[in-house]
Amino acid sequence: MNELQERILKDGQALGNGILKVDSFVNHQVDPHLMDTCGRDFAKRFANVGATKILTAEISGIAPALTTALHMGLPVVYARKTKPITMPDQVYLTLAPSHTKGRMVELIVSPEYLANDEKVLIIDDFLASGQTILGLARLAEAAGSKVVGIGALIEKIFEGGRDALASLGVPIESIACIKSLDDGKIEFVE
Amino acid sequence: MNELQERILKDGQALGNGILKVDSFVNHQVDPHLMDTCGRDFAKRFANVGATKILTAEISGIAPALTTALHMGLPVVYARKTKPITMPDQVYLTLAPSHTKGRMVELIVSPEYLANDEKVLIIDDFLASGQTILGLARLAEAAGSKVVGIGALIEKIFEGGRDALASLGVPIESIACIKSLDDGKIEFVE
Repeated sequence: MNELQERILKDGQALGNGILKVDSFVNHQVDPHLMDTCGRDFAKRFANVGATKILTAEISGIAPALTTALHMGLPVVYARKTKPITMPDQVYLTLAPSHTKGRMVELIVSPEYLANDEKVLIIDDFLASGQTILGLARLAEAAGSKVVGIGALIEKIFEGGRDALASLGVPIESIACIKSLDDGKIEFVE
Repeated sequence: MNELQERILKDGQALGNGILKVDSFVNHQVDPHLMDTCGRDFAKRFANVGATKILTAEISGIAPALTTALHMGLPVVYARKTKPITMPDQVYLTLAPSHTKGRMVELIVSPEYLANDEKVLIIDDFLASGQTILGLARLAEAAGSKVVGIGALIEKIFEGGRDALASLGVPIESIACIKSLDDGKIEFVE
């Protein structure tokens, strides 16, 4: 069992309806040491995919994407959910359903920072239905970049995201892969 | 001249109306090495304030707060701007004006992660009018915590934030302190 899995068992909470609360070390309060360990792990797992840039979505993807980027020596771009005034008028924009907000959210990347021929490694906190990550992949493709790998801290395998992403044909890695959250009990895939 | 100042001169853009665009290394694309250098710098500057927790605001504060937290060995809490479903009903909430959104935004922290007697170091990307940081300080005070220091990557001294925060009576550190952005020219305080 790795450090993230141990922490999930210790401090994670299965709230019902497939919701795993990890607000004390990932989503609201962040444990920087744990994020660094996970970033090092991703850097090792994706050492040979030839990535030139890391792509994530604000907000909760930023911490694991940043520590992965640190260990790989790559820049990280986080897709914005609202367009800041500093962004040009012409952008890459896609819609993805948000679990926590219960509606569609925009994912926006400036063409300034996602160029043609970039090799993109997508890192996020959760892989659940895979819809946010598919949205990021659409942004990368729109920019003429190629997705070369997908990493998530926590995968909820029962939500089918891995199947939804299969057509991308890239390696998908999760550090803690959860089989079930039924009856408040957290079970990992062996 | 430090690494952040050099990078601002090289890649920052003064867009007029006091707006400094640093989207290529801080606000949309992030340079993890630069963030790590700044985090190490903050850790050194605030080594003796006795901080027990780092507090920032989503979104752009997360990267510098995380690297500072890494170098100080402290947890970091980022105030949310929308309340996720995993947060309890009873929260600390305050309003602060958002520059980029042109309206008031909520800053929300769960009482689970900001406790009585915590010594809080606030880290953010920008210190401009100081209103976001004042909002974070109000959250800390509401929780019975004490603010012990304030750090910003970039200070726009002409917006008066340092004066607005003076009543907190804590050390305020910025890594790049900007005197003027007039006529598209970036000038630092000596």
